[in-house]
Amino acid sequence: MVEGHEAVERLERLTGMLRRRGVILPAFEIHGGAKGLYDFGPVGGRLRANVQNVWRDHWLSQGDVVEVSCPTVTPFAVLEASGHVAEFSDFMTVCQACNEASRADTMLEDHHPNPDALSMADLQALLDDVRPSCPSCGASEWSPIVAENLMFDTVIGAGSSGRPAFLRPETAQGMFTTYPAIYRHFRERLPFGAMQLGRGYRNEISPRQGMIRLREFNMAELEYFIDPESDVVPDLSAWSATSVQLVPADGEAFEGTIPKALADGIILHPTVAWFMARTYDLMMSLGVHATKLRFRQHARDEMAHYALDCWDVELHGSYGWVECVGIAHRGCYDLEAHERATGQRLRAWRTYPEPKIVEIDGWTIDGAKAGPAFRALAGQVKAKVETLAADTVFPASIVLDGGDEVTVESEHVKRVQRTESVAGEWFIPHVVEPAFGIDRIIWHLLDHAYEESGAGEEMYVRMRLHPDVAPVDAAVLPLFEKEGMGALASEIHRRLCATRGVLASYDGSGSIGRRYARADEIGVPCCLTVDHTSLEDGTVTWRDRDTGEQTRMSVDDAVQRLASR
Amino acid sequence: MVEGHEAVERLERLTGMLRRRGVILPAFEIHGGAKGLYDFGPVGGRLRANVQNVWRDHWLSQGDVVEVSCPTVTPFAVLEASGHVAEFSDFMTVCQACNEASRADTMLEDHHPNPDALSMADLQALLDDVRPSCPSCGASEWSPIVAENLMFDTVIGAGSSGRPAFLRPETAQGMFTTYPAIYRHFRERLPFGAMQLGRGYRNEISPRQGMIRLREFNMAELEYFIDPESDVVPDLSAWSATSVQLVPADGEAFEGTIPKALADGIILHPTVAWFMARTYDLMMSLGVHATKLRFRQHARDEMAHYALDCWDVELHGSYGWVECVGIAHRGCYDLEAHERATGQRLRAWRTYPEPKIVEIDGWTIDGAKAGPAFRALAGQVKAKVETLAADTVFPASIVLDGGDEVTVESEHVKRVQRTESVAGEWFIPHVVEPAFGIDRIIWHLLDHAYEESGAGEEMYVRMRLHPDVAPVDAAVLPLFEKEGMGALASEIHRRLCATRGVLASYDGSGSIGRRYARADEIGVPCCLTVDHTSLEDGTVTWRDRDTGEQTRMSVDDAVQRLASR
Repeated sequence: MVEGHEAVERLERLTGMLRRRGVILPAFEIHGGAKGLYDFGPVGGRLRANVQNVWRDHWLSQGDVVEVSCPTVTPFAVLEASGHVAEFSDFMTVCQACNEASRADTMLEDHHPNPDALSMADLQALLDDVRPSCPSCGASEWSPIVAENLMFDTVIGAGSSGRPAFLRPETAQGMFTTYPAIYRHFRERLPFGAMQLGRGYRNEISPRQGMIRLREFNMAELEYFIDPESDVVPDLSAWSATSVQLVPADGEAFEGTIPKALADGIILHPTVAWFMARTYDLMMSLGVHATKLRFRQHARDEMAHYALDCWDVELHGSYGWVECVGIAHRGCYDLEAHERATGQRLRAWRTYPEPKIVEIDGWTIDGAKAGPAFRALAGQVKAKVETLAADTVFPASIVLDGGDEVTVESEHVKRVQRTESVAGEWFIPHVVEPAFGIDRIIWHLLDHAYEESGAGEEMYVRMRLHPDVAPVDAAVLPLFEKEGMGALASEIHRRLCATRGVLASYDGSGSIGRRYARADEIGVPCCLTVDHTSLEDGTVTWRDRDTGEQTRMSVDDAVQRLASR
Repeated sequence: MVEGHEAVERLERLTGMLRRRGVILPAFEIHGGAKGLYDFGPVGGRLRANVQNVWRDHWLSQGDVVEVSCPTVTPFAVLEASGHVAEFSDFMTVCQACNEASRADTMLEDHHPNPDALSMADLQALLDDVRPSCPSCGASEWSPIVAENLMFDTVIGAGSSGRPAFLRPETAQGMFTTYPAIYRHFRERLPFGAMQLGRGYRNEISPRQGMIRLREFNMAELEYFIDPESDVVPDLSAWSATSVQLVPADGEAFEGTIPKALADGIILHPTVAWFMARTYDLMMSLGVHATKLRFRQHARDEMAHYALDCWDVELHGSYGWVECVGIAHRGCYDLEAHERATGQRLRAWRTYPEPKIVEIDGWTIDGAKAGPAFRALAGQVKAKVETLAADTVFPASIVLDGGDEVTVESEHVKRVQRTESVAGEWFIPHVVEPAFGIDRIIWHLLDHAYEESGAGEEMYVRMRLHPDVAPVDAAVLPLFEKEGMGALASEIHRRLCATRGVLASYDGSGSIGRRYARADEIGVPCCLTVDHTSLEDGTVTWRDRDTGEQTRMSVDDAVQRLASR
């Protein structure tokens, strides 16, 4: 996927640096590692926390969104209802020589433009035809393809009281299962959103591509519940001059604004457009390069059957264009699925602008006659009779929900004719879901920020991360550790760390140029140098990572400047 | 465990409120629920995030601590090395009538002062003697007790390539497996710490007590690595006037200061005392009541065999005194265990104050003779010979690591006598670990903050949460939604939410008193009311949750006040 010799070498240098400096590294490496699992190390841990906090603040700032946090261990019934037990799978085949499992579509990428859209039968035919080499051992005898569910499974409880469960494949289900509490919280007024940051799991058959395809990942999803009949349209005027790259499902890629694409019928729903626009702002505030971001619309056959519109945010980096966010209009699919499985009402109430007058003309039962006749079944008979048309002729044979068939005589029923005033109705809200792959986004922030200059031994690396996500806010460097400079630098370091929201590092060893380079490499936005003058007048030199510019200022000013951003 | 009728009723009202208002609620309730799993709902989600952020800032402010983030899915080998595969278990017995599994010690709590300290044999004897009733069905025939491992197990990968794994029982292992990266990050200078916030898992046999005993929980741990020979003592003078409750392993509970308890030899290590003091500060800044916090020292037989000292922070609430934090000096146990299992060096280098002169007096092999004599084994023979004492007499019979026995003749060896200068040595750092149960702490924050006044229908609830953790920072209330007050209130609400770090709610329905009560119940620190005067002069009324005091101020001042805290 990484094209060109130079790009491959840059990627190797970047991942090597991330590993060496403790940003991102293969997990459990001292124990031999585990494919598809990564650590955020001593530098990466805060980068991750910063990205999560920027994400959280961005969405909470809407004022109509709340955060929830649900377990990752999820009972079977929940994921059966959501469709994951049946659908969350990849087509797998096993090498007959070495027993290594592989994804059939991945191995056939060079032989079909879009193998992951093939049916199992078509994929099997292509596999039989191509007979690709096993990536592990090189043999080319394959077992028949099977659909392998990708959820990690486990058991809740011990012994025979144990119940089957999975690790959640997404955080979204938590917002559906807690819907009643969220609806209550917003005092039953749509629209509103609920979001969750946390781990998701996908037991990949053969993980690859570093941070792009993980078995356990950081994700963040927002479910925004709307009334499908509401005609309130979000105000997109703030984005009327913001040009973005759009790749519609039909037609050529183009540059345009989100409001215009909505007006032209390319984006199919105003709430989808709203979340595209807000997501664009979020990506910019994280430090994504605007030229390396595009919105790609799903083609009809690429979307889930219930989806009304779906756009990916793709970021461009070492692995080409990669889906990092999906913004999908999911209709009423999810709440309806859980409602069907549980019998609980997962709906919202819509009050009509004015009460509707409804003419009732039909039947009900005559309790005095029907009660003794149908006994325990009388309630069910009543419910059925009340659905019968006014022109029903009795005696009539009806089938109850339980399967029983009964004959209803005319003496069992009474005609009902009346006028009712109905104030409103229950309906299943629609949902628009922006879903974020946090690790993929972090990967691209690093990839976009990573800047090399010079070459070979002389190569210099500057990681131009946005200050809001940089893993360290400032490096404090004593020119020398002696003559009190080390002590003063330590004091400034302590003071900065004690300032809310500020994390500083202290680096006292090596030439000052080497220390600048160490700080630049992991993206520390500024270095504060303590020198002889500092001892006299309490000033430090503020060196900017990006410009290299140096400014002398008081320690107070430096602290103030770091605290206020 | 909850004693007294009034306490039980208060607990019921509290948990009922937490559920009704969406703070904490049983997970997957629409699907029938799952014991031991809880959701943080639309109100609780931000409370949790706030507590995590206060925790994170508190420890990062030390300046010598970093954050890491590791997978929860953990390969078998890692948890085998850590001792969890062998040791992380409870004694289980199964009801012969209903098949429900129970913890043997829990059922015998009324018959022994400390049943969880009993051996399996003693517990079995007590069970046979007492024959307790099954909590599910009331029968009292039990299966023989077995040690049931409490880790959730799963498999990484598909088919026969799958490898056994567990969900991590604690976050701590991540700081040990990434130790090489952390050591490198701190430029190989002890002491330093690494911490992690995240999920931990414990497949409880029979969970109970709400948030106290969960199957999946939020936890946070810090591993602080120290040189056991360092005589640098942390400065505890800031706590010399802070009196805390201490319950030493031997002797009576008393009130005293942490530095004094260290000086008196009650607290056994200065770094343990440091983390007790810093943890006390953290608890106060979260809003724990000082009178409901005590430090309890583990008795020798209660500690892990390798632990040098261990203190729990216990918080008092509806369930009595509950362990919420453990602060343990773990010696070199963890790094040594992973070193042994992996063969990787998990050590730090200690440079001697001055080089040590070492007299070498012993043996090595004479390559010219020993090479042909021992061939492939020559290397192993050399290693063994160099460990032999100077007075060894040859020929000597030695056993190699592989089990081979060889006879070494005097012609195979040479005497070695020389003086070497050794600059330092590798050693395994010791570790002091404060480990936090975030859910238990949150539970106690709520329990301590929950204040009822009045009674019956007139009961009024005020949740006096610390403003830094409160789930909502301000409620904006239009006196009426008409005459432009609703619009102005919405504008203020939007402006507050757009302010970094501030989350406001908008509540427009019901009497103003009812709305104050709704806000007070979940601990919103202030309400801003928009009334007729607001329309004229742009001021609002700031009502303080705790005092009920009302102050009129400009919207700018209110925003500023909320932004700066």
